[in-house]
Amino acid sequence: MNPPDDFRRWSQEIAHSLEDFLQRHLPPPEIAPRRLHEAMRHAVLDGGKRVRPLLVFAAGELAEAPKDALQVVAASVELIHAYSLVHDDLPAMDNDVLRRGKPTCHVQFGEAHALLAGDTLQSLAFQWLSEFPLHPDARRQLSLIRQLALASGSRGMGGGQAMDLENTGSTLTLPELEAMHLKKTGALIRAAILMGAHCGRPLSNEEERHLTGYANALGLAYQVVDDVLDAEADTVTLGKTAGKDAAANKATYAGIMGLKQAKDFSRELLRTARESLETFGPRRQRLEELADFIVNRRS
Amino acid sequence: MNPPDDFRRWSQEIAHSLEDFLQRHLPPPEIAPRRLHEAMRHAVLDGGKRVRPLLVFAAGELAEAPKDALQVVAASVELIHAYSLVHDDLPAMDNDVLRRGKPTCHVQFGEAHALLAGDTLQSLAFQWLSEFPLHPDARRQLSLIRQLALASGSRGMGGGQAMDLENTGSTLTLPELEAMHLKKTGALIRAAILMGAHCGRPLSNEEERHLTGYANALGLAYQVVDDVLDAEADTVTLGKTAGKDAAANKATYAGIMGLKQAKDFSRELLRTARESLETFGPRRQRLEELADFIVNRRS
Repeated sequence: MNPPDDFRRWSQEIAHSLEDFLQRHLPPPEIAPRRLHEAMRHAVLDGGKRVRPLLVFAAGELAEAPKDALQVVAASVELIHAYSLVHDDLPAMDNDVLRRGKPTCHVQFGEAHALLAGDTLQSLAFQWLSEFPLHPDARRQLSLIRQLALASGSRGMGGGQAMDLENTGSTLTLPELEAMHLKKTGALIRAAILMGAHCGRPLSNEEERHLTGYANALGLAYQVVDDVLDAEADTVTLGKTAGKDAAANKATYAGIMGLKQAKDFSRELLRTARESLETFGPRRQRLEELADFIVNRRS
Repeated sequence: MNPPDDFRRWSQEIAHSLEDFLQRHLPPPEIAPRRLHEAMRHAVLDGGKRVRPLLVFAAGELAEAPKDALQVVAASVELIHAYSLVHDDLPAMDNDVLRRGKPTCHVQFGEAHALLAGDTLQSLAFQWLSEFPLHPDARRQLSLIRQLALASGSRGMGGGQAMDLENTGSTLTLPELEAMHLKKTGALIRAAILMGAHCGRPLSNEEERHLTGYANALGLAYQVVDDVLDAEADTVTLGKTAGKDAAANKATYAGIMGLKQAKDFSRELLRTARESLETFGPRRQRLEELADFIVNRRS
């Protein structure tokens, strides 16, 4: 099997076992309140590229973490990501009607149920992290919970979304844009990577620092590539609706740096991410492959 | 000092130290994202009767729990309560403009910020529960986190709110109404009581059962009294706007049972709550006083 096929098989296996875990552990649609449980499942099941769960598993491999613990952490991080999309799509925020080819949660279930589905998905993430055994040392498990709470909160993802709202329509400098994205997208990506690693053997301070360097570079790269893809939909396909970011008058890397420079920047971040891993042995392979996948993706 | 004065002083001291804790530990309004941090503080500070924190401390007294742990648990439970009010007041839900004599969060800060403030208050509750030392046995601390997550989620408070939405305008039977309120208001009240007790010495199975009996009776009593107060605002003060529940065509105890029977029911629940405590010694005093306070309150 050549390397890309091997990576594809690895990521498909993880996506498949994640889907299975979510199917079994999300509240079943047959029990009350049924409409809420349907809305929660609609928001989480059969969705997306599952980048954060893949990062949890790849970082777990680096630290030789047990698969059972990684599964729970991956699913919990994905619940937080899914809830943030449900709330982000609400009319009071981005007012989106389509997500992953399906109607958004509030279009399908109404705004009130979408609001509650997001709220209860967040609670469920912390329920899972506290009820499954994740580490022989319960204090390490408490620290995993704290990492996810910090990454979700006002100094993490939620704070980044607020900065995005407060900045819409204003001109951002590159450092301001970076500060926003390190929270908005970066915090949860960083948490996925560090939580995955923290399920395994203890890292040295130096390893911790290098892994954080990888996580920061990759979180930013993810967003830069997002901006480039959004802008290219506009540039390449003439006559199509302009990119969503430009339409919403949002600051983007492509807008501030120009498209070519943004592409160069994403490749520079990929180099930084890969270099940060050099201290680790062959167990770094999946994290390297994921960095390549994230920067070179076409959607 | 006569007993009511003593109870008043005890509850004022707790409310005061809670306010102090919240002031110090909520993100300061001077750091970014400032508007989000202001919205979070608006939603939590200087608010309400603080019934849930009082229950945490009263149950903690029963189990001789250390005050530092109770403070963190009380504050975390109050964050969950505050976030649920912010989301409940949104136009997609109850569309309320006033809360505790102040403009609701979305009136003051806009819908998007109110949504994010609620979301990040929930994260902060789990951050506090995982980062402060609450119990020498970290496994007990994990179980506190699980209790709050369950009480907030789709089979607790969030589920009760969904049942309330799904039921508006339809005729409920008394058992259906009770099932909804055991989740909507009851779950968080029960969690406050049990989490407070679980910060202290281990309870026997029998004690656990009695305390749960107290918590269930009190949670229901709280809601029955709410319904009676809402209905009496309509009955007593002629010419005033009809009670909010009747206007929203919501099922209430006063509506289904009649006002007099609902009052009798609240007194019966008070008796059940007090009887459930009989197995405990003099340390049950604050829980008894709180039950009296909740059932006999005038607002």
